[in-house]
Amino acid sequence: MKRGVFITLEGGEGSGKSTQGKRLADALRATGRDVVLTREPGGTPQGEALRALLVRGETGAWSAASEAMLMSAAREVHVRTVIAPALAAGAVVISDRFMDSTRVYQGFAGGVAAEEIAALEKMAIGDCKPDLTLIFDLPAEQGLARATARGSDAEDRFERKGRDFHERLRDGFHAIAAAEPRRCVVIDAARDVEAVFADVWTAVETRLHG
Amino acid sequence: MKRGVFITLEGGEGSGKSTQGKRLADALRATGRDVVLTREPGGTPQGEALRALLVRGETGAWSAASEAMLMSAAREVHVRTVIAPALAAGAVVISDRFMDSTRVYQGFAGGVAAEEIAALEKMAIGDCKPDLTLIFDLPAEQGLARATARGSDAEDRFERKGRDFHERLRDGFHAIAAAEPRRCVVIDAARDVEAVFADVWTAVETRLHG
Repeated sequence: MKRGVFITLEGGEGSGKSTQGKRLADALRATGRDVVLTREPGGTPQGEALRALLVRGETGAWSAASEAMLMSAAREVHVRTVIAPALAAGAVVISDRFMDSTRVYQGFAGGVAAEEIAALEKMAIGDCKPDLTLIFDLPAEQGLARATARGSDAEDRFERKGRDFHERLRDGFHAIAAAEPRRCVVIDAARDVEAVFADVWTAVETRLHG
Repeated sequence: MKRGVFITLEGGEGSGKSTQGKRLADALRATGRDVVLTREPGGTPQGEALRALLVRGETGAWSAASEAMLMSAAREVHVRTVIAPALAAGAVVISDRFMDSTRVYQGFAGGVAAEEIAALEKMAIGDCKPDLTLIFDLPAEQGLARATARGSDAEDRFERKGRDFHERLRDGFHAIAAAEPRRCVVIDAARDVEAVFADVWTAVETRLHG
């Protein structure tokens, strides 16, 4: 059986990744595709337990280095038990965040050395790299305002890290897109949901049939 | 102020590390030393939360690679917030398990490549290496029998990994002791508590005053 297609959604807080992921999953299912929509941190019982430790509480509870190790541990379980089996079965796997979030949050903005991030990435994913990465791009201030407006969510530990941190995230995602243009498509997320989804769909159709 | 002394206690299940650690802490305090007795996984609120995920549940819940990343994340917090500050204040720090357990449980017996274990170790501990490591050595069968007799403890995920795994642990600790004879002292733990402690005390006194 032909290996499936692995799509990851990346970007800062409030960039609309989750909303677009659900729409994309629905649209792909409507074409008859098997779709697995998952997320990081999380995606497995072990990953959700780590998510609960990582995304709540004091911003200083974990250093960037320990965050990177925890995220990578969760990712190893996620790849091995969810993503790789679904791809082997021919599904389209959509993950709301994946390795680029660690490169950017803990590496580029967090200060962990690139070679340490690379070593963790290799342990976590082996050769299970995304075929297509959609980077949802908007000014940090706008994303944080949206994330705050989302309200009741207690999962705001990263949101509370300050505007400078979030500006560095955006720079980091731009750097990844520039370095890997075949894998990454930057999407202007500072527009309404329909306009953003039109670009998402074009990028995915191009990759699926290109 | 003179940096304190960092002592780690290593060995398989049921080797008497925890009992000997408490005795050693008491004996050192009786000589007027400041002592911090701590443990891994654990030793911090973050580490205890990870311990709860790691030492309970199905043996297959985590791969050796993800275990190594989780243990290293907890260790980074432990070193940064507990061990290094206590050493800087001149204390004797005694840790019931430390980096050698990851080398042996996840590396030697678990199959994670030595260079991956080394990369994680560097991220977790930097240059905060133990001054003295006591390796409590006894046949795996005997240690597991003691651990089982301990009874009500639900923290038995590693104990349930089978005798072959535990024989490899013992081989791994022997290999570390052979490679780093200045740091490591192997203690015959297949004896009564008093006899074992006499050797512990000799090793510690030699290091403190040698």
